Amino acid sequence: MNVLIIGGGGFLGQKLAKALAARGTLRGQPIRKLILADLAAPADVSAPFPVETRTADITDAAQMRALMQDRPDVIYHLAAIVSGQAEAEFDLGMNVNLFGTINVFEAARALGTNPVLVFTSSIAVYGGEAPDPIEDWTLLNPQTSYGAQKAAAEALLNDFSRKGFFDGRGLRLPTISIRPGKPNKAASSFMSSIFREPLQGQEAVCPVSPDYEHWFLSPRRCIENLIIAAEIPADAWGQNRCLALPGRTHSIGEMVEAMRRVAGDEPVARIRWEPDPELQSIVMGWRGRFNPTKALRLGFKNDDSFEDNVRYFLEDDLNIPA
Amino acid sequence: MNVLIIGGGGFLGQKLAKALAARGTLRGQPIRKLILADLAAPADVSAPFPVETRTADITDAAQMRALMQDRPDVIYHLAAIVSGQAEAEFDLGMNVNLFGTINVFEAARALGTNPVLVFTSSIAVYGGEAPDPIEDWTLLNPQTSYGAQKAAAEALLNDFSRKGFFDGRGLRLPTISIRPGKPNKAASSFMSSIFREPLQGQEAVCPVSPDYEHWFLSPRRCIENLIIAAEIPADAWGQNRCLALPGRTHSIGEMVEAMRRVAGDEPVARIRWEPDPELQSIVMGWRGRFNPTKALRLGFKNDDSFEDNVRYFLEDDLNIPA
Repeated sequence: MNVLIIGGGGFLGQKLAKALAARGTLRGQPIRKLILADLAAPADVSAPFPVETRTADITDAAQMRALMQDRPDVIYHLAAIVSGQAEAEFDLGMNVNLFGTINVFEAARALGTNPVLVFTSSIAVYGGEAPDPIEDWTLLNPQTSYGAQKAAAEALLNDFSRKGFFDGRGLRLPTISIRPGKPNKAASSFMSSIFREPLQGQEAVCPVSPDYEHWFLSPRRCIENLIIAAEIPADAWGQNRCLALPGRTHSIGEMVEAMRRVAGDEPVARIRWEPDPELQSIVMGWRGRFNPTKALRLGFKNDDSFEDNVRYFLEDDLNIPA
Repeated sequence: MNVLIIGGGGFLGQKLAKALAARGTLRGQPIRKLILADLAAPADVSAPFPVETRTADITDAAQMRALMQDRPDVIYHLAAIVSGQAEAEFDLGMNVNLFGTINVFEAARALGTNPVLVFTSSIAVYGGEAPDPIEDWTLLNPQTSYGAQKAAAEALLNDFSRKGFFDGRGLRLPTISIRPGKPNKAASSFMSSIFREPLQGQEAVCPVSPDYEHWFLSPRRCIENLIIAAEIPADAWGQNRCLALPGRTHSIGEMVEAMRRVAGDEPVARIRWEPDPELQSIVMGWRGRFNPTKALRLGFKNDDSFEDNVRYFLEDDLNIPA
């Protein structure tokens, strides 16, 4: 069992690598090798099997083919230009999120081994005029370039899978919170930083009002779901290989109160409320209520409360027993 | 008002050119020039304005930019590799239906004039597990490569329009019947030939049973709708620039009886019923029942009966007053 993680330097890629190292197996087989690839060399991860870190650019088709010379059995494609940057730099977003993804798909197809390919899509594929809540059969109607590029990639992942070129599985990630690390150019970045920074004694800015509602999943459950995605039998997916992951609808205000219950008043006082109309124009186009029926039926996992998400961050990322 | 029809040699392109010639105007302005472009030189069309015919390959980005040197105000992009061929020749379908379409989109964007761009998608974008009937907000879930390539292109058309690169309008065409000309490699080709050939004294093969139900529109209404699509104000489209056109659900058996009522028993006797499992595997994945609410609200037109479709074919294509 060889595993390749493209985007292996990102926070999900690193957490996934550590989770694979802790399990030692995937799809019932011992992992023989793990390759972490990213634009900049990923941090190494200690594991009971060899881990290689490589630099690779998904916009280069030849590099993608070279990256798969070890004939991975499972490929995770997590690399992307995030929503805010794809909106500001349209051509970069197209080149990475669409054409780069096609390079990954074609390299996996060229193996001729029908590898499992897990692709992270996003709930940014939803928006606009569609009934509430989002169901498994709801139109993808993205209102951002990031979402449009993910939606186009999903159509291709389904077709490459139907043709037997690879065994694709696409997960529309909720907004992952509380994400560790630094703020990034995702429009959703504040939905982690208003908790992450205050929990570490720093101020953070919330650009939306407390009643803004959205759809969330913790990093811990997201990683569990990335592993589940690779392990579900191919025939269980039916006629669509992409689905919205489970998550929970929370208002920002509810989440702030959850942080207060876990960590007290001080972190809450470190949030500055400064509305940002430009950012709101992106995030208000997203959807906050879902019925992830198929994902729950297939065994994907959800959080129980946002208090848990706060505790997971303290335990997993700050090493504070909560 | 300069108009460009890419795919101007096809049957829809030719009928559209003739309809524009008959009107002389589009979007309330006199047409100054019409360019018909296709892989092979399109047949000329006589019109009260200059008509140019050109050969051009949409898989060549430079050719698409050159084709738009006259700065068309309205671009029709009708060119495609049809369903059966895109299934058999996957890479050709990707190159034309996806990458070629992106070349058209990028060339239109490069004009910097926000031209109207009418794109023919297809009801082949629907399929698989989705409730019946298809609604405006139903998931695109194609079960063919042709449908997947159209679905991916739709996501991009919406996003290029949202970004103001062009003013896109995507129409998911029902199966157009009765189509003139010769059979082609579309899996739906028989849905015209079982009427067209018998009405001209020739035998034709029906590869599905009489109870097969599908979604149909006549060429005459389709052309009217292509013109309506260009004329609807941009702001009437809302947050999605693509929609399923009106049509009618008919079983093959009902359509055959409609032909009998218009043209008597003889054409019906010329249909040979020979089931084709491979073709059925494509067409049974399509959907036959739709609620085209948005299209009807925007003023798109429907047929009144399949008898009319038979009469339109006799009048428009065989010059027989019906």
